[in-house]
Amino acid sequence: MKFISYAHGGRESFGLVEGEGIIDLPRLLGNRYPDLKSLIAADALAQAREAARGRAADVALDAVTFLPVIPNPGKIWCAGLNYGEHVRETGREVPERPMYFLRVADSQVGHGQAILRPPESERLDFEGEIAVIIGREGRRIEEADAWTHIAGYACYNDASIRDWQLHTSQWGPGKNFFATGGFGPWMVSADEIEPDAEMTLVTRLNGTEVQRATTRMLIHSIPRLISYASTVAPLRAGDVIVTGTPGGVGAKRTPPLWMKDGDVVEVEVDRIGILRNRVKNESK
Amino acid sequence: MKFISYAHGGRESFGLVEGEGIIDLPRLLGNRYPDLKSLIAADALAQAREAARGRAADVALDAVTFLPVIPNPGKIWCAGLNYGEHVRETGREVPERPMYFLRVADSQVGHGQAILRPPESERLDFEGEIAVIIGREGRRIEEADAWTHIAGYACYNDASIRDWQLHTSQWGPGKNFFATGGFGPWMVSADEIEPDAEMTLVTRLNGTEVQRATTRMLIHSIPRLISYASTVAPLRAGDVIVTGTPGGVGAKRTPPLWMKDGDVVEVEVDRIGILRNRVKNESK
Repeated sequence: MKFISYAHGGRESFGLVEGEGIIDLPRLLGNRYPDLKSLIAADALAQAREAARGRAADVALDAVTFLPVIPNPGKIWCAGLNYGEHVRETGREVPERPMYFLRVADSQVGHGQAILRPPESERLDFEGEIAVIIGREGRRIEEADAWTHIAGYACYNDASIRDWQLHTSQWGPGKNFFATGGFGPWMVSADEIEPDAEMTLVTRLNGTEVQRATTRMLIHSIPRLISYASTVAPLRAGDVIVTGTPGGVGAKRTPPLWMKDGDVVEVEVDRIGILRNRVKNESK
Repeated sequence: MKFISYAHGGRESFGLVEGEGIIDLPRLLGNRYPDLKSLIAADALAQAREAARGRAADVALDAVTFLPVIPNPGKIWCAGLNYGEHVRETGREVPERPMYFLRVADSQVGHGQAILRPPESERLDFEGEIAVIIGREGRRIEEADAWTHIAGYACYNDASIRDWQLHTSQWGPGKNFFATGGFGPWMVSADEIEPDAEMTLVTRLNGTEVQRATTRMLIHSIPRLISYASTVAPLRAGDVIVTGTPGGVGAKRTPPLWMKDGDVVEVEVDRIGILRNRVKNESK
Protein backbone atom coordinates (compact mmCIF):
# COMPACT_ATOMS: atom_id res chain seq x y z
CA MET A 1 0.00 0.00 0.00
CA LYS A 2 1.12 3.52 -0.75
CA PHE A 3 0.16 6.20 1.75
CA ILE A 4 0.47 9.82 0.81
CA SER A 5 0.21 13.15 2.62
CA TYR A 6 -1.10 15.84 0.33
CA ALA A 7 -2.83 19.19 0.01
CA HIS A 8 -5.75 19.90 -2.27
CA GLY A 9 -8.12 22.83 -2.45
CA GLY A 10 -6.49 24.51 0.53
CA ARG A 11 -6.92 21.45 2.75
CA GLU A 12 -4.16 19.17 4.07
CA SER A 13 -5.00 15.51 4.08
CA PHE A 14 -3.67 12.01 3.52
CA GLY A 15 -4.78 9.00 1.58
CA LEU A 16 -4.14 5.75 -0.19
CA VAL A 17 -2.69 5.82 -3.68
CA GLU A 18 -4.66 3.70 -6.15
CA GLY A 19 -3.31 3.82 -9.68
CA GLU A 20 -3.22 7.46 -10.69
CA GLY A 21 -5.54 8.64 -7.95
CA ILE A 22 -5.87 9.08 -4.20
CA ILE A 23 -8.58 7.70 -1.94
CA ASP A 24 -8.91 10.33 0.77
CA LEU A 25 -8.73 8.67 4.16
CA PRO A 26 -10.02 11.26 6.66
CA ARG A 27 -13.24 11.41 4.64
CA LEU A 28 -13.49 7.61 4.51
CA LEU A 29 -12.67 7.02 8.17
CA GLY A 30 -14.88 9.75 9.62
CA ASN A 31 -12.04 12.13 10.55
CA ARG A 32 -10.88 9.80 13.29
CA TYR A 33 -7.26 10.42 12.33
CA PRO A 34 -6.06 13.97 11.69
CA ASP A 35 -2.95 12.93 9.79
CA LEU A 36 -0.96 9.97 8.50
CA LYS A 37 1.11 9.91 11.68
CA SER A 38 -1.99 9.32 13.79
CA LEU A 39 -3.20 6.60 11.42
CA ILE A 40 0.15 4.86 11.85
CA ALA A 41 0.06 5.37 15.63
CA ALA A 42 -3.35 3.68 15.75
CA ASP A 43 -1.94 0.73 13.81
CA ALA A 44 -4.78 1.32 11.35
CA LEU A 45 -3.04 0.97 7.99
CA ALA A 46 -4.72 -2.38 7.22
CA GLN A 47 -8.05 -1.05 8.42
CA ALA A 48 -7.68 1.87 6.02
CA ARG A 49 -7.00 -0.50 3.15
CA GLU A 50 -10.09 -2.54 3.99
CA ALA A 51 -12.24 0.56 4.14
CA ALA A 52 -10.85 1.74 0.81
CA ARG A 53 -11.36 -1.56 -1.01
CA GLY A 54 -13.29 -1.06 -4.23
CA ARG A 55 -13.66 2.70 -3.79
CA ALA A 56 -12.97 5.09 -6.62
CA ALA A 57 -10.27 7.70 -6.24
CA ASP A 58 -11.35 11.03 -4.82
CA VAL A 59 -8.71 13.07 -6.57
CA ALA A 60 -6.05 12.55 -9.21
CA LEU A 61 -2.41 12.37 -8.13
CA ASP A 62 -1.50 15.06 -10.62
CA ALA A 63 -4.08 17.44 -9.17
CA VAL A 64 -2.62 17.60 -5.66
CA THR A 65 0.40 19.06 -3.89
CA PHE A 66 2.47 16.28 -2.38
CA LEU A 67 3.48 17.01 1.20
CA PRO A 68 6.43 15.44 3.01
CA VAL A 69 5.33 11.84 3.66
CA ILE A 70 5.10 12.64 7.36
CA PRO A 71 4.74 16.42 7.58
CA ASN A 72 5.05 16.47 11.38
CA PRO A 73 7.46 13.80 12.64
CA GLY A 74 8.40 13.92 16.31
CA LYS A 75 11.99 13.36 15.33
CA ILE A 76 14.03 12.85 12.19
CA TRP A 77 17.27 10.99 12.87
CA CYS A 78 19.65 11.19 9.92
CA ALA A 79 22.63 8.87 9.62
CA GLY A 80 25.85 10.34 8.28
CA LEU A 81 28.74 8.39 6.73
CA ASN A 82 26.82 5.15 6.42
CA TYR A 83 28.14 3.93 3.05
CA GLY A 84 31.81 3.06 2.58
CA GLU A 85 32.25 4.93 -0.67
CA HIS A 86 30.86 8.10 0.86
CA VAL A 87 33.10 7.73 3.92
CA ARG A 88 36.10 7.39 1.62
CA GLU A 89 35.24 10.41 -0.54
CA THR A 90 34.92 12.59 2.58
CA GLY A 91 38.30 11.41 3.87
CA ARG A 92 36.77 10.58 7.25
CA GLU A 93 36.85 7.45 9.38
CA VAL A 94 34.15 4.77 9.36
CA PRO A 95 32.15 5.55 12.49
CA GLU A 96 31.95 2.63 14.90
CA ARG A 97 28.50 3.76 15.95
CA PRO A 98 25.75 5.28 13.86
CA MET A 99 26.59 8.93 13.29
CA TYR A 100 23.34 10.71 13.85
CA PHE A 101 22.29 14.29 13.40
CA LEU A 102 18.76 15.68 13.47
CA ARG A 103 16.51 17.42 10.99
CA VAL A 104 13.45 19.48 11.86
CA ALA A 105 10.11 19.20 10.09
CA ASP A 106 10.43 22.74 8.69
CA SER A 107 13.38 21.64 6.58
CA GLN A 108 11.30 19.18 4.55
CA VAL A 109 9.40 19.35 1.26
CA GLY A 110 7.24 16.85 -0.55
CA HIS A 111 7.64 15.28 -3.98
CA GLY A 112 7.25 17.87 -6.71
CA GLN A 113 7.76 20.83 -4.40
CA ALA A 114 10.75 23.08 -4.97
CA ILE A 115 13.94 22.48 -3.06
CA LEU A 116 15.05 26.00 -2.22
CA ARG A 117 18.58 27.21 -2.73
CA PRO A 118 19.03 30.03 -0.22
CA PRO A 119 20.74 33.27 -1.22
CA GLU A 120 23.30 32.65 1.54
CA SER A 121 25.07 29.84 -0.31
CA GLU A 122 25.84 28.35 -3.71
CA ARG A 123 26.75 25.02 -2.16
CA LEU A 124 23.48 23.13 -2.29
CA ASP A 125 24.25 19.42 -2.61
CA PHE A 126 22.08 16.34 -3.14
CA GLU A 127 22.06 13.26 -0.90
CA GLY A 128 19.80 10.44 -2.06
CA GLU A 129 18.71 8.22 0.83
CA ILE A 130 16.17 5.66 1.97
CA ALA A 131 13.87 6.77 4.77
CA VAL A 132 12.38 4.37 7.32
CA ILE A 133 9.13 5.43 8.97
CA ILE A 134 8.50 4.07 12.44
CA GLY A 135 5.19 2.37 13.20
CA ARG A 136 5.13 0.64 16.55
CA GLU A 137 6.62 2.68 19.39
CA GLY A 138 9.59 1.23 21.22
CA ARG A 139 12.57 1.94 23.41
CA ARG A 140 15.80 -0.05 23.41
CA ILE A 141 14.55 -2.10 20.51
CA GLU A 142 16.59 -5.24 19.90
CA GLU A 143 17.98 -5.55 16.40
CA ALA A 144 16.10 -8.82 15.96
CA ASP A 145 12.80 -7.05 16.64
CA ALA A 146 13.53 -3.91 14.67
CA TRP A 147 11.67 -4.85 11.49
CA THR A 148 8.41 -5.13 13.41
CA HIS A 149 8.67 -1.46 14.37
CA ILE A 150 8.69 -0.20 10.79
CA ALA A 151 5.52 1.21 9.22
CA GLY A 152 7.06 1.74 5.81
CA TYR A 153 9.68 3.26 3.55
CA ALA A 154 10.10 6.33 1.39
CA CYS A 155 12.75 8.15 -0.64
CA TYR A 156 14.64 11.04 0.93
CA ASN A 157 16.87 13.76 -0.41
CA ASP A 158 18.93 15.00 2.52
CA ALA A 159 19.96 18.07 0.53
CA SER A 160 22.63 20.03 2.35
CA ILE A 161 24.12 23.50 2.37
CA ARG A 162 27.72 22.39 2.58
CA ASP A 163 29.40 25.57 3.75
CA TRP A 164 26.88 26.04 6.56
CA GLN A 165 27.22 22.35 7.43
CA LEU A 166 30.90 23.00 8.08
CA HIS A 167 30.67 26.35 9.89
CA THR A 168 31.38 24.39 13.08
CA SER A 169 31.83 20.70 13.89
CA GLN A 170 28.07 20.29 14.25
CA TRP A 171 26.21 19.77 10.98
CA GLY A 172 22.72 20.83 12.06
CA PRO A 173 22.55 24.27 10.41
CA GLY A 174 23.65 23.07 6.97
CA LYS A 175 21.22 20.16 7.21
CA ASN A 176 18.19 22.20 8.17
CA PHE A 177 17.76 25.01 5.71
CA PHE A 178 14.11 25.66 5.05
CA ALA A 179 12.61 23.50 2.30
CA THR A 180 15.70 21.50 1.42
CA GLY A 181 14.91 17.95 2.54
CA GLY A 182 12.83 16.04 -0.02
CA PHE A 183 10.67 13.31 1.53
CA GLY A 184 8.39 11.34 -0.76
CA PRO A 185 6.66 10.59 -2.93
CA TRP A 186 4.73 8.36 -0.54
CA MET A 187 5.23 5.68 2.10
CA VAL A 188 5.19 2.08 0.86
CA SER A 189 3.98 0.08 3.83
CA ALA A 190 6.27 -2.53 5.33
CA ASP A 191 3.95 -5.42 4.44
CA GLU A 192 5.05 -4.96 0.82
CA ILE A 193 8.79 -5.03 1.48
CA GLU A 194 10.05 -8.05 3.36
CA PRO A 195 12.51 -7.56 6.21
CA ASP A 196 16.08 -7.09 5.02
CA ALA A 197 15.01 -6.81 1.39
CA GLU A 198 17.77 -5.49 -0.82
CA MET A 199 16.67 -2.07 -2.08
CA THR A 200 18.53 -0.13 -4.73
CA LEU A 201 18.92 3.61 -4.42
CA VAL A 202 19.73 5.83 -7.40
CA THR A 203 20.10 9.61 -7.47
CA ARG A 204 19.89 11.51 -10.75
CA LEU A 205 20.61 15.16 -11.43
CA ASN A 206 19.04 16.43 -14.64
CA GLY A 207 18.71 12.84 -15.80
CA THR A 208 22.33 11.86 -15.17
CA GLU A 209 22.96 9.19 -12.54
CA VAL A 210 25.12 10.60 -9.74
CA GLN A 211 24.69 8.05 -6.92
CA ARG A 212 23.88 4.32 -6.82
CA ALA A 213 23.96 1.85 -3.95
CA THR A 214 21.92 -0.86 -2.31
CA THR A 215 20.94 -1.43 1.28
CA ARG A 216 23.47 -4.31 1.38
CA MET A 217 26.15 -1.64 1.40
CA LEU A 218 24.95 0.13 4.55
CA ILE A 219 27.65 0.19 7.24
CA HIS A 220 25.08 0.30 10.03
CA SER A 221 22.06 -1.78 8.99
CA ILE A 222 18.49 -0.60 9.40
CA PRO A 223 18.01 -2.77 12.55
CA ARG A 224 21.21 -1.34 14.00
CA LEU A 225 20.09 2.21 13.26
CA ILE A 226 16.73 1.56 14.91
CA SER A 227 18.26 -0.12 17.93
CA TYR A 228 20.76 2.67 18.54
CA ALA A 229 18.31 5.55 18.09
CA SER A 230 15.73 3.87 20.30
CA THR A 231 18.29 3.51 23.07
CA VAL A 232 18.62 7.28 23.18
CA ALA A 233 14.88 7.97 23.28
CA PRO A 234 11.67 6.17 22.37
CA LEU A 235 10.99 5.82 18.68
CA ARG A 236 7.37 6.72 18.11
CA ALA A 237 4.91 6.38 15.25
CA GLY A 238 5.84 8.72 12.45
CA ASP A 239 9.42 9.22 13.55
CA VAL A 240 11.80 9.03 10.63
CA ILE A 241 15.20 7.41 10.27
CA VAL A 242 17.09 8.56 7.20
CA THR A 243 19.64 5.87 6.53
CA GLY A 244 22.55 7.74 4.93
CA THR A 245 23.80 8.66 1.47
CA PRO A 246 26.14 6.69 -0.83
CA GLY A 247 29.22 8.00 -2.58
CA GLY A 248 28.99 10.54 -5.37
CA VAL A 249 27.88 13.71 -3.60
CA GLY A 250 28.51 16.93 -5.49
CA ALA A 251 30.87 18.42 -2.91
CA LYS A 252 33.48 15.72 -3.47
CA ARG A 253 33.59 15.93 -7.27
CA THR A 254 36.21 17.82 -9.25
CA PRO A 255 34.98 20.40 -9.92
CA PRO A 256 32.21 20.32 -7.31
CA LEU A 257 28.72 19.76 -8.67
CA TRP A 258 26.29 22.11 -6.93
CA MET A 259 22.57 22.12 -7.59
CA LYS A 260 21.29 25.32 -9.14
CA ASP A 261 18.06 27.02 -10.07
CA GLY A 262 16.06 24.91 -12.51
CA ASP A 263 17.88 21.64 -11.87
CA VAL A 264 15.77 18.52 -11.47
CA VAL A 265 16.93 16.04 -8.85
CA GLU A 266 15.49 12.56 -8.48
CA VAL A 267 15.92 9.91 -5.81
CA GLU A 268 14.65 6.53 -6.94
CA VAL A 269 14.34 3.46 -4.74
CA ASP A 270 13.04 0.29 -6.35
CA ARG A 271 9.69 -0.85 -4.96
CA ILE A 272 9.11 2.63 -3.57
CA GLY A 273 9.17 5.06 -6.48
CA ILE A 274 10.77 8.30 -7.56
CA LEU A 275 11.07 11.46 -5.48
CA ARG A 276 11.49 14.34 -7.92
CA ASN A 277 12.16 17.96 -7.02
CA ARG A 278 13.06 21.03 -8.96
CA VAL A 279 15.63 23.37 -7.47
CA LYS A 280 14.59 26.98 -7.13
CA ASN A 281 16.52 30.02 -6.02
CA GLU A 282 14.93 31.42 -2.91
CA SER A 283 14.56 35.17 -2.82
CA LYS A 284 15.34 36.87 0.47
CA MET B 1 4.24 37.43 33.91
CA LYS B 2 5.09 33.83 34.50
CA PHE B 3 3.53 31.29 32.17
CA ILE B 4 3.62 27.63 33.08
CA SER B 5 2.78 24.36 31.35
CA TYR B 6 1.55 21.79 33.82
CA ALA B 7 -0.45 18.63 34.39
CA HIS B 8 -3.07 18.19 37.06
CA GLY B 9 -5.68 15.52 37.57
CA GLY B 10 -4.67 13.70 34.41
CA ARG B 11 -5.09 16.80 32.25
CA GLU B 12 -2.33 18.81 30.56
CA SER B 13 -2.81 22.53 30.66
CA PHE B 14 -1.08 25.87 31.00
CA GLY B 15 -1.60 28.95 33.05
CA LEU B 16 -0.42 32.15 34.69
CA VAL B 17 1.50 31.90 37.94
CA GLU B 18 0.11 34.19 40.65
CA GLY B 19 1.92 33.91 43.97
CA GLU B 20 1.82 30.26 44.95
CA GLY B 21 -0.98 29.34 42.57
CA ILE B 22 -1.88 28.96 38.92
CA ILE B 23 -4.72 30.61 37.05
CA ASP B 24 -5.70 28.05 34.45
CA LEU B 25 -5.81 29.71 31.04
CA PRO B 26 -7.69 27.28 28.77
CA ARG B 27 -10.60 27.43 31.21
CA LEU B 28 -10.47 31.24 31.36
CA LEU B 29 -10.09 31.77 27.62
CA GLY B 30 -12.74 29.29 26.52
CA ASN B 31 -10.33 26.65 25.21
CA ARG B 32 -9.33 28.86 22.32
CA TYR B 33 -5.68 27.87 22.76
CA PRO B 34 -4.75 24.22 23.24
CA ASP B 35 -1.31 24.94 24.70
CA LEU B 36 1.11 27.69 25.67
CA LYS B 37 2.70 27.56 22.23
CA SER B 38 -0.58 28.47 20.57
CA LEU B 39 -1.18 31.29 23.07
CA ILE B 40 2.23 32.69 22.16
CA ALA B 41 1.57 32.22 18.44
CA ALA B 42 -1.66 34.23 18.80
CA ASP B 43 0.30 37.03 20.52
CA ALA B 44 -2.22 36.69 23.33
CA LEU B 45 0.01 36.84 26.44
CA ALA B 46 -1.20 40.32 27.40
CA GLN B 47 -4.79 39.35 26.68
CA ALA B 48 -4.38 36.38 29.04
CA ARG B 49 -3.08 38.66 31.77
CA GLU B 50 -6.03 41.01 31.35
CA ALA B 51 -8.48 38.13 31.52
CA ALA B 52 -6.76 36.81 34.64
CA ARG B 53 -6.68 40.12 36.47
CA GLY B 54 -8.17 39.79 39.94
CA ARG B 55 -8.96 36.09 39.58
CA ALA B 56 -8.15 33.62 42.30
CA ALA B 57 -5.78 30.76 41.55
CA ASP B 58 -7.39 27.54 40.31
CA VAL B 59 -4.74 25.24 41.70
CA ALA B 60 -1.68 25.49 43.93
CA LEU B 61 1.77 25.32 42.36
CA ASP B 62 2.75 22.53 44.72
CA ALA B 63 -0.22 20.41 43.65
CA VAL B 64 0.72 20.14 39.98
CA THR B 65 3.30 18.42 37.82
CA PHE B 66 5.41 20.98 36.01
CA LEU B 67 5.81 20.18 32.32
CA PRO B 68 8.63 21.47 30.12
CA VAL B 69 7.81 25.17 29.60
CA ILE B 70 7.00 24.43 25.98
CA PRO B 71 6.23 20.70 25.82
CA ASN B 72 6.00 20.65 22.01
CA PRO B 73 8.45 23.10 20.43
CA GLY B 74 8.85 22.90 16.67
CA LYS B 75 12.59 23.11 17.12
CA ILE B 76 15.10 23.38 19.93
CA TRP B 77 18.37 24.94 18.80
CA CYS B 78 21.13 24.49 21.40
CA ALA B 79 24.32 26.50 21.26
CA GLY B 80 27.54 24.73 22.14
CA LEU B 81 30.78 26.37 23.26
CA ASN B 82 29.26 29.79 23.82
CA TYR B 83 31.16 30.86 26.97
CA GLY B 84 34.93 31.36 26.91
CA GLU B 85 35.64 29.43 30.09
CA HIS B 86 33.74 26.42 28.78
CA VAL B 87 35.55 26.60 25.43
CA ARG B 88 38.88 26.64 27.30
CA GLU B 89 38.04 23.71 29.56
CA THR B 90 37.08 21.59 26.53
CA GLY B 91 40.34 22.46 24.77
CA ARG B 92 38.43 23.45 21.63
CA GLU B 93 38.53 26.60 19.50
CA VAL B 94 36.11 29.49 19.89
CA PRO B 95 33.63 28.92 17.07
CA GLU B 96 33.36 31.89 14.70
CA ARG B 97 29.71 31.07 14.15
CA PRO B 98 27.13 29.82 16.60
CA MET B 99 27.70 26.09 17.06
CA TYR B 100 24.24 24.64 16.98
CA PHE B 101 22.93 21.16 17.60
CA LEU B 102 19.30 20.14 18.05
CA ARG B 103 17.27 18.60 20.81
CA VAL B 104 13.92 16.86 20.39
CA ALA B 105 10.91 17.45 22.62
CA ASP B 106 11.11 13.87 23.97
CA SER B 107 14.40 14.67 25.65
CA GLN B 108 12.86 17.30 27.94
CA VAL B 109 11.43 17.28 31.45
CA GLY B 110 9.79 19.97 33.54
CA HIS B 111 10.83 21.47 36.86
CA GLY B 112 10.59 18.90 39.64
CA GLN B 113 10.46 15.93 37.31
CA ALA B 114 13.27 13.40 37.47
CA ILE B 115 16.22 13.70 35.12
CA LEU B 116 16.85 10.10 34.15
CA ARG B 117 20.29 8.56 34.19
CA PRO B 118 20.11 5.72 31.65
CA PRO B 119 21.62 2.32 32.41
CA GLU B 120 23.82 2.70 29.32
CA SER B 121 26.09 5.29 30.89
CA GLU B 122 27.46 6.70 34.13
CA ARG B 123 28.47 9.95 32.46
CA LEU B 124 25.45 12.14 33.04
CA ASP B 125 26.61 15.75 33.22
CA PHE B 126 24.84 19.04 34.02
CA GLU B 127 24.81 22.12 31.80
CA GLY B 128 23.01 25.12 33.24
CA GLU B 129 21.75 27.46 30.51
CA ILE B 130 19.33 30.27 29.73
CA ALA B 131 16.56 29.41 27.27
CA VAL B 132 14.96 31.95 24.94
CA ILE B 133 11.43 31.23 23.75
CA ILE B 134 10.45 32.69 20.40
CA GLY B 135 7.27 34.70 20.09
CA ARG B 136 6.90 36.46 16.78
CA GLU B 137 7.78 34.30 13.78
CA GLY B 138 10.58 35.46 11.55
CA ARG B 139 13.13 34.48 8.96
CA ARG B 140 16.51 36.15 8.49
CA ILE B 141 15.88 38.29 11.53
CA GLU B 142 18.28 41.22 11.83
CA GLU B 143 20.17 41.36 15.11
CA ALA B 144 18.71 44.81 15.79
CA ASP B 145 15.19 43.36 15.57
CA ALA B 146 15.88 40.14 17.46
CA TRP B 147 14.58 41.24 20.85
CA THR B 148 11.14 41.85 19.41
CA HIS B 149 10.89 38.18 18.43
CA ILE B 150 11.30 36.90 21.99
CA ALA B 151 8.25 35.80 24.00
CA GLY B 152 10.19 35.08 27.17
CA TYR B 153 12.94 33.29 29.06
CA ALA B 154 13.38 30.17 31.16
CA CYS B 155 16.09 28.10 32.81
CA TYR B 156 17.44 25.05 31.00
CA ASN B 157 19.58 22.12 32.04
CA ASP B 158 21.07 20.70 28.86
CA ALA B 159 22.07 17.53 30.70
CA SER B 160 24.26 15.34 28.54
CA ILE B 161 25.40 11.74 28.33
CA ARG B 162 29.03 12.50 27.62
CA ASP B 163 30.21 9.17 26.23
CA TRP B 164 27.29 8.98 23.82
CA GLN B 165 27.85 12.61 22.87
CA LEU B 166 31.32 11.62 21.72
CA HIS B 167 30.51 8.32 19.98
CA THR B 168 30.95 10.24 16.73
CA SER B 169 31.64 13.87 15.81
CA GLN B 170 27.92 14.64 15.98
CA TRP B 171 26.61 15.31 19.48
CA GLY B 172 22.91 14.60 18.90
CA PRO B 173 22.64 11.19 20.59
CA GLY B 174 24.31 12.25 23.85
CA LYS B 175 22.18 15.39 23.91
CA ASN B 176 18.86 13.65 23.39
CA PHE B 177 18.50 10.88 25.93
CA PHE B 178 14.95 10.58 27.10
CA ALA B 179 14.05 12.85 30.02
CA THR B 180 17.42 14.54 30.43
CA GLY B 181 16.81 18.16 29.41
CA GLY B 182 15.32 20.24 32.22
CA PHE B 183 13.23 23.18 30.97
CA GLY B 184 11.50 25.35 33.53
CA PRO B 185 10.16 26.24 35.93
CA TRP B 186 8.15 28.68 33.78
CA MET B 187 8.51 31.31 31.13
CA VAL B 188 9.00 34.87 32.33
CA SER B 189 7.59 37.02 29.55
CA ALA B 190 9.88 39.42 27.74
CA ASP B 191 8.00 42.49 28.92
CA GLU B 192 9.56 41.90 32.35
CA ILE B 193 13.15 41.63 31.18
CA GLU B 194 14.39 44.53 29.10
CA PRO B 195 16.38 43.82 25.95
CA ASP B 196 20.03 43.00 26.64
CA ALA B 197 19.47 42.82 30.39
CA GLU B 198 22.37 41.20 32.19
CA MET B 199 21.14 37.91 33.62
CA THR B 200 23.16 35.76 35.99
CA LEU B 201 23.14 32.00 35.65
CA VAL B 202 24.13 29.69 38.50
CA THR B 203 24.14 25.89 38.54
CA ARG B 204 24.21 24.01 41.85
CA LEU B 205 24.68 20.30 42.44
CA ASN B 206 23.44 19.16 45.84
CA GLY B 207 23.63 22.76 47.02
CA THR B 208 27.21 23.39 45.87
CA GLU B 209 27.72 25.99 43.18
CA VAL B 210 29.33 24.41 40.11
CA GLN B 211 28.74 27.01 37.36
CA ARG B 212 28.29 30.79 37.34
CA ALA B 213 28.20 33.27 34.48
CA THR B 214 26.24 36.19 33.11
CA THR B 215 24.82 36.88 29.69
CA ARG B 216 27.57 39.50 29.23
CA MET B 217 29.95 36.57 28.84
CA LEU B 218 28.17 34.96 25.91
CA ILE B 219 30.44 34.65 22.87
CA HIS B 220 27.50 34.82 20.46
CA SER B 221 24.87 37.15 21.89
CA ILE B 222 21.18 36.34 21.99
CA PRO B 223 20.48 38.56 18.93
CA ARG B 224 23.29 36.85 17.05
CA LEU B 225 21.95 33.40 17.96
CA ILE B 226 18.47 34.39 16.79
CA SER B 227 19.71 35.94 13.59
CA TYR B 228 21.82 32.92 12.65
CA ALA B 229 19.19 30.29 13.45
CA SER B 230 16.50 32.22 11.61
CA THR B 231 18.66 32.37 8.51
CA VAL B 232 18.61 28.57 8.39
CA ALA B 233 14.84 28.24 8.81
CA PRO B 234 11.98 30.35 10.14
CA LEU B 235 11.85 30.74 13.90
CA ARG B 236 8.28 30.19 14.98
CA ALA B 237 6.29 30.77 18.13
CA GLY B 238 7.37 28.30 20.80
CA ASP B 239 10.70 27.48 19.21
CA VAL B 240 13.48 27.41 21.77
CA ILE B 241 17.03 28.68 21.65
CA VAL B 242 19.22 27.34 24.43
CA THR B 243 22.09 29.75 24.71
CA GLY B 244 25.01 27.61 25.91
CA THR B 245 26.64 26.55 29.17
CA PRO B 246 29.45 28.27 31.10
CA GLY B 247 32.61 26.65 32.43
CA GLY B 248 32.51 24.12 35.24
CA VAL B 249 30.88 21.09 33.65
CA GLY B 250 31.46 17.80 35.44
CA ALA B 251 33.29 16.11 32.58
CA LYS B 252 36.19 18.55 32.75
CA ARG B 253 36.82 18.29 36.50
CA THR B 254 39.47 16.14 38.11
CA PRO B 255 38.13 13.68 38.94
CA PRO B 256 35.04 14.06 36.76
CA LEU B 257 31.84 14.92 38.59
CA TRP B 258 28.97 12.85 37.22
CA MET B 259 25.39 13.18 38.40
CA LYS B 260 24.04 10.11 40.12
CA ASP B 261 20.82 8.73 41.52
CA GLY B 262 19.39 11.02 44.20
CA ASP B 263 21.40 14.11 43.29
CA VAL B 264 19.57 17.41 43.17
CA VAL B 265 20.58 19.79 40.40
CA GLU B 266 19.46 23.39 40.21
CA VAL B 267 19.76 26.00 37.49
CA GLU B 268 18.98 29.49 38.75
CA VAL B 269 18.67 32.58 36.61
CA ASP B 270 17.92 35.86 38.36
CA ARG B 271 14.54 37.35 37.44
CA ILE B 272 13.44 33.93 36.17
CA GLY B 273 13.66 31.49 39.07
CA ILE B 274 15.09 28.09 39.93
CA LEU B 275 14.78 24.94 37.85
CA ARG B 276 15.26 22.04 40.22
CA ASN B 277 15.45 18.35 39.27
CA ARG B 278 16.31 15.20 41.08
CA VAL B 279 18.42 12.61 39.25
CA LYS B 280 16.99 9.13 39.09
CA ASN B 281 18.45 5.93 37.74
CA GLU B 282 16.31 4.72 34.88
CA SER B 283 15.56 1.02 34.89
CA LYS B 284 15.70 -0.74 31.54
